[in-house]
Amino acid sequence: MPDSSPSFAVRGSTDEVEEGVAFAPKFDAEGLVTCVATDARSGAVLMVAHMNAQALQQTIATGEAWYFSRSRRALWRKGESSGHVQRVVEMRVDCDQDAVVIRVEQAGPGACHTGRRSCFYRAVPLGKAPDGKLMMEFRDAEKAFDPSAIYGKS
Amino acid sequence: MPDSSPSFAVRGSTDEVEEGVAFAPKFDAEGLVTCVATDARSGAVLMVAHMNAQALQQTIATGEAWYFSRSRRALWRKGESSGHVQRVVEMRVDCDQDAVVIRVEQAGPGACHTGRRSCFYRAVPLGKAPDGKLMMEFRDAEKAFDPSAIYGKS
Repeated sequence: MPDSSPSFAVRGSTDEVEEGVAFAPKFDAEGLVTCVATDARSGAVLMVAHMNAQALQQTIATGEAWYFSRSRRALWRKGESSGHVQRVVEMRVDCDQDAVVIRVEQAGPGACHTGRRSCFYRAVPLGKAPDGKLMMEFRDAEKAFDPSAIYGKS
Repeated sequence: MPDSSPSFAVRGSTDEVEEGVAFAPKFDAEGLVTCVATDARSGAVLMVAHMNAQALQQTIATGEAWYFSRSRRALWRKGESSGHVQRVVEMRVDCDQDAVVIRVEQAGPGACHTGRRSCFYRAVPLGKAPDGKLMMEFRDAEKAFDPSAIYGKS
C-alpha cells in the first residue's frame, strides 16, 4: 500500500474502543466488517454488504464504496460493471467498531442487482401465522432499471 | 417450538430466492443473518446485530426484537435488562435473504449500551490522510441516558 493509505489503530480497552477517536475496526473470523449503505437523500437502507481491510481502506481513501464479495472471495468496486457507483458522503462506525454505515449518493437508478433502488423490497409478515407459513409482500419493488440490459442476460 | 412458530422455506433457485414470496433466510456458517434496526420515526440506523433462526422466529412471532449475541453465544431479548425494548413496525429482507432491516419503535431514550440513541455516534474521516492516521469525530453523540444507572457499574 502507498504511504498515505489509511491505517487502522490497534484495538485497546473497551473504553478506548467505545469512547476513543482512534479507528480500530474489529474484523470477524473471515476478516470482515458489516457495511450498511443508506441513501444520503432519503435515508433508506439501500444494501448490506461486507468489507475486508482493503475494501475499507479503498473506500476511505477514494470516497467511493468498495466491498468484499463473500461468494466470489474478491474485492469489488460497487458499480464496476453497472456504472452504479456509490459516492460516500459520510462513514460512521458503531460502538464496538465491527460495523459501519455509509451514507451514499447512488449513481444511476438503483443499488440492487435485481433492478431495484434498494435490496430491501420485500416485507416479512409479523405475528404468529396460524399455519406457520411466512409469505412476504413486495414493497417499493418497482424495477428502476432492467438488470439484463446492464449485466447481460444470464 | 409450538405449532404456530413461523417456519422458514427451503431455499430454491436464485430466481425463487430473489423474486419469490417464500421467506427462506440464508444463515451464514455460524447460523446467523445480519439485522439492521432503524428508527421508525427518523429512519436513522440505530444498531447492527445478528439473529439466529430462533431470534428471527421470536422477533416475527412477538413483534419485539430478539438477537443472538456472538460474544455471549446466547439468545438475547433487546431491552431485557435495560427496558429499552424495540417494537418492530416492519421487517424487510434483502435480495439474497441474508440480511433483514427492522423498523422499530425504540422504548426509552436510546438503543446503544453506551447511552446514546444510536450506536453510530462517530464519523470516520474520508480521503487520504497525509500520515495515514484516522482520527474520528463524535457526531450525535450526546448521552441520552446514563448507562451505569441502567446496567450497573462495571
